[in-house]
Amino acid sequence: VAESLERNGRRVVLFPLRGWADAKAVERYTHYWSNLGQFGRFLRIARKEGCRDVIFIGSLVRPAITQLITFDWETLRLLPRVARQFYGGDDHLLGGIARIFEDYGFRLLGAHEVAPDILVKEGALGGLWPKARDYSDIARGLAALRAIGPFDVGQAVVVANNNVLALEAAEGTDQMLARIADLRQSGRIRLPTGTGVLVKAPKSGQDRRFDLPSIGPRTIEGAAEAGLAGIAVIAGDAIVAEPELVIRIADRAGLFVAGVREELRAET
Amino acid sequence: VAESLERNGRRVVLFPLRGWADAKAVERYTHYWSNLGQFGRFLRIARKEGCRDVIFIGSLVRPAITQLITFDWETLRLLPRVARQFYGGDDHLLGGIARIFEDYGFRLLGAHEVAPDILVKEGALGGLWPKARDYSDIARGLAALRAIGPFDVGQAVVVANNNVLALEAAEGTDQMLARIADLRQSGRIRLPTGTGVLVKAPKSGQDRRFDLPSIGPRTIEGAAEAGLAGIAVIAGDAIVAEPELVIRIADRAGLFVAGVREELRAET
Repeated sequence: VAESLERNGRRVVLFPLRGWADAKAVERYTHYWSNLGQFGRFLRIARKEGCRDVIFIGSLVRPAITQLITFDWETLRLLPRVARQFYGGDDHLLGGIARIFEDYGFRLLGAHEVAPDILVKEGALGGLWPKARDYSDIARGLAALRAIGPFDVGQAVVVANNNVLALEAAEGTDQMLARIADLRQSGRIRLPTGTGVLVKAPKSGQDRRFDLPSIGPRTIEGAAEAGLAGIAVIAGDAIVAEPELVIRIADRAGLFVAGVREELRAET
Repeated sequence: VAESLERNGRRVVLFPLRGWADAKAVERYTHYWSNLGQFGRFLRIARKEGCRDVIFIGSLVRPAITQLITFDWETLRLLPRVARQFYGGDDHLLGGIARIFEDYGFRLLGAHEVAPDILVKEGALGGLWPKARDYSDIARGLAALRAIGPFDVGQAVVVANNNVLALEAAEGTDQMLARIADLRQSGRIRLPTGTGVLVKAPKSGQDRRFDLPSIGPRTIEGAAEAGLAGIAVIAGDAIVAEPELVIRIADRAGLFVAGVREELRAET
């Protein structure tokens, strides 16, 4: 996102989260290491740097938030409001946070709005395309994601031969893929390598300014280790990090990475 | 189930599955170690032993079935039919298997029909009851299970403070609980010990003669290691193995084990 913004002539200031952000990835930009809950500090620095638009990148593992936050004064003042938002799932919490930023004069934008070139387009990203069987798995995966949408949980499932093998919740996509790799290795899942699809889609009604499904090199590696045929995301509704590297890894591992239409979703 | 049947004066013959059944648990009964796919062998022995009623105990991890089966002749003859049933999820497969057994003159019964005393009743099994907060988690868990029901996947979820932390699919309940324990240990989930509920419920429309949700000593240990407050199942729709031991472990670990009504389910 930062690269894409700079290409378009915008100045970027990063507030990487300590313990979450990749130090190497942020060092090329003006950056201020931050903790969750330092809203007061953010306000001061962002105003001094002349920031106007705020873009959230990456997803927060929500159950951890309450514990990781070391609150500064400004945040504590807002806390009753944040706490109220906190109960009931990601979407409520994020909507509340968005309003707080806007109250302080920032414009909250989605990565997809400021850097549309990082969105996955319809079709194959690399050299391989899904096969008919894969499309059937993708359709089922999209339906499963739609079903769990109201529960404000994960955005990813693994489907193979029409069977839902894994549903993501608090563990995140990488760990879900590792689980499939384990189940395959231990013989609990005995499907030929190159069977099954990781399907990612945003929750229906989710605020796209937060937590748009994203894939990157690690996702491809995880899917390859899980023995999958490929990865499918909703075209225009997912971000790909380091696309050249993603394509190289996927092509070498024999995986497809595809943007599909949501209408593909199978009705159950 | 076998104990309960013998108490009621019925003779029990076990066909434990090699690699799945517990050798110590079966040795007190007449038993014939079996592999999946030896339907011909089962037919011969079951007829010789004068068996009439067949009861399936435990769940088959379905994605593994195709690979684990070493087919005998009788089974191969039936295979096109089994294969047809196999595609599309547990329920289809199990329904097909049930009809095959019935075609050969056996009566397929559910554990809950022959051994109703092993069903979980409404209320607390041990000394502890769910608190108001737990009931809210249980209601949300039941709703999540209802939502994923059509996908023929797991029968269990973990919910804490109204957040769905894990949804069971191919990995099974024990591994799902181990995942929660890991997420807690690594700090990805930071909730006080004694928060969250494991909720198990049969899929809607599921043939209760197969795979009624069951809990046993290992489930309680897993839930305790995952730092949960307790376990909830649908009263009359779940089996408890070794109830005395289950109660002892749960009471000692400070966990509730409760049978609840399905109507508790929260609408989303």
